[in-house]
Amino acid sequence: MKIIGKIKEQQNYSLNMKYQKMKIGLVPTMGFLHKGHLSLIDKAKELSDKIIVSIFVNPTQFGAGEDYRKYPRDENRDLKLLREKEVDAVFIPKTKEIYPEGFKTSCHVSELSKKYCGSSRPGHFEGVTTVVLKLFNITQPDIAVFGEKDYQQYIIIKKMSEDLNLPIKIIPSPIIREKDGLAMSSRNTYLNREQRKEAAIVYESLLTAKDLVKKGKHETGFLKKKMTGLIESKKYTRIDYIEFINPETLKKVKKIEKPTRILMAVWVGKTRLIDNIEVRP
Amino acid sequence: MKIIGKIKEQQNYSLNMKYQKMKIGLVPTMGFLHKGHLSLIDKAKELSDKIIVSIFVNPTQFGAGEDYRKYPRDENRDLKLLREKEVDAVFIPKTKEIYPEGFKTSCHVSELSKKYCGSSRPGHFEGVTTVVLKLFNITQPDIAVFGEKDYQQYIIIKKMSEDLNLPIKIIPSPIIREKDGLAMSSRNTYLNREQRKEAAIVYESLLTAKDLVKKGKHETGFLKKKMTGLIESKKYTRIDYIEFINPETLKKVKKIEKPTRILMAVWVGKTRLIDNIEVRP
Repeated sequence: MKIIGKIKEQQNYSLNMKYQKMKIGLVPTMGFLHKGHLSLIDKAKELSDKIIVSIFVNPTQFGAGEDYRKYPRDENRDLKLLREKEVDAVFIPKTKEIYPEGFKTSCHVSELSKKYCGSSRPGHFEGVTTVVLKLFNITQPDIAVFGEKDYQQYIIIKKMSEDLNLPIKIIPSPIIREKDGLAMSSRNTYLNREQRKEAAIVYESLLTAKDLVKKGKHETGFLKKKMTGLIESKKYTRIDYIEFINPETLKKVKKIEKPTRILMAVWVGKTRLIDNIEVRP
Repeated sequence: MKIIGKIKEQQNYSLNMKYQKMKIGLVPTMGFLHKGHLSLIDKAKELSDKIIVSIFVNPTQFGAGEDYRKYPRDENRDLKLLREKEVDAVFIPKTKEIYPEGFKTSCHVSELSKKYCGSSRPGHFEGVTTVVLKLFNITQPDIAVFGEKDYQQYIIIKKMSEDLNLPIKIIPSPIIREKDGLAMSSRNTYLNREQRKEAAIVYESLLTAKDLVKKGKHETGFLKKKMTGLIESKKYTRIDYIEFINPETLKKVKKIEKPTRILMAVWVGKTRLIDNIEVRP
């Protein structure tokens, strides 16, 4: 497994693969890998010849007062896991390599980036799209795999790729969950024992809504109320948002008449968790 | 010569060339080609195996009240000239192909885009960087040639390419001038006979400044005054800006101590002309 820290080296590696007609699959991560990430790698393997995983905790997608500094990192463990997965190359640059002095360029997807997580985290998605665009240019993938846990991020990156005519297929991969249903996330490590137990309510509330939809309850106002009741029954939880949206346009939906995505963000203590599910009428 | 209107076809053409290890040179234009454009093609030919010229009058880089509608177009003449130049492919898409319904993404280079021409034409450079990024992704060049007449544009695109880690070399090519020194531009066709005659003062004022610098006059305030006097001596001229700048950072310079670029924009009647020159102490 090649471990690459420099942009030029990674780009040469990738262009070389390209000239050999190898199909490159990229899995961009912020490290501290869990089974969710590993499932993205499996997905990428199905679809490409060479797998590149990037590890970069991107400062520009964290807001003031967010958890950039304390975001969990464990490079050695990550590299061990990636070696076991037989990844071909790991791109793990320093911050200054990605954002040298005088860096001035940004990429932005309007509308989609202001809603939901973008409203709670101003500038977050601009940070994401800019760094992902850079990672795409550096690693030159044919496909890139993104987890559906960050559903809004996946849609925004897909939109950016289409709008900018990138010759890259953006592949979604389903959420991987803990035994009690909590969506896997590096941030779950922030939770103390009691909070961790309560956090299961997030997915439970999504399952409850899904079940109610199955039973013919299609008014999203009613469903949101039910979910809110469940979340608020816990001690450490506080709802950031719960929204019912069109899975492509991300526009809000009042009544579930077509496949709809329920997006949510919930604070559990000082930890913000996100989750989502698809429901069909 | 291949004439291509569809993004997918152009991208496949280019990726195919890439797989054959052909070096692709791109010359992006807005059509209505003149000797300036043709010199860019010559430059591209020196540096690459296959030449792609794009012709696209990009609506998003024109402001409200600017000349998007009346911008001169002559597709047949352009194609004839490009055939004579033995260009390999012309990418000439419709507006809807580049900006389909629901297009939402933009790319922006901060600071550099707000100054000078960006101050006179708000949003102009954001339109330029976004479309150029798209054209890069569509045509997959190894090098792209830009004329120094649009000096600020060249620097902004170079900065964007570096910041986004595009594997593309941005090549500048010198200004081509009419016999009386007027920088070649598709917009020169807007000038009536009298205005056309007066327009020569733009370059004359740059030459005068260059001459004064040679003679030891290094205070840009003094030089700007001299240039202003010359421009204002004409009937139809009105100065938009004259600036002395660092050729890389585009920051203003008070005294010419290193190679410096003089940038200027001048209205001649209702036509806005730009020009620039390098001066050395």
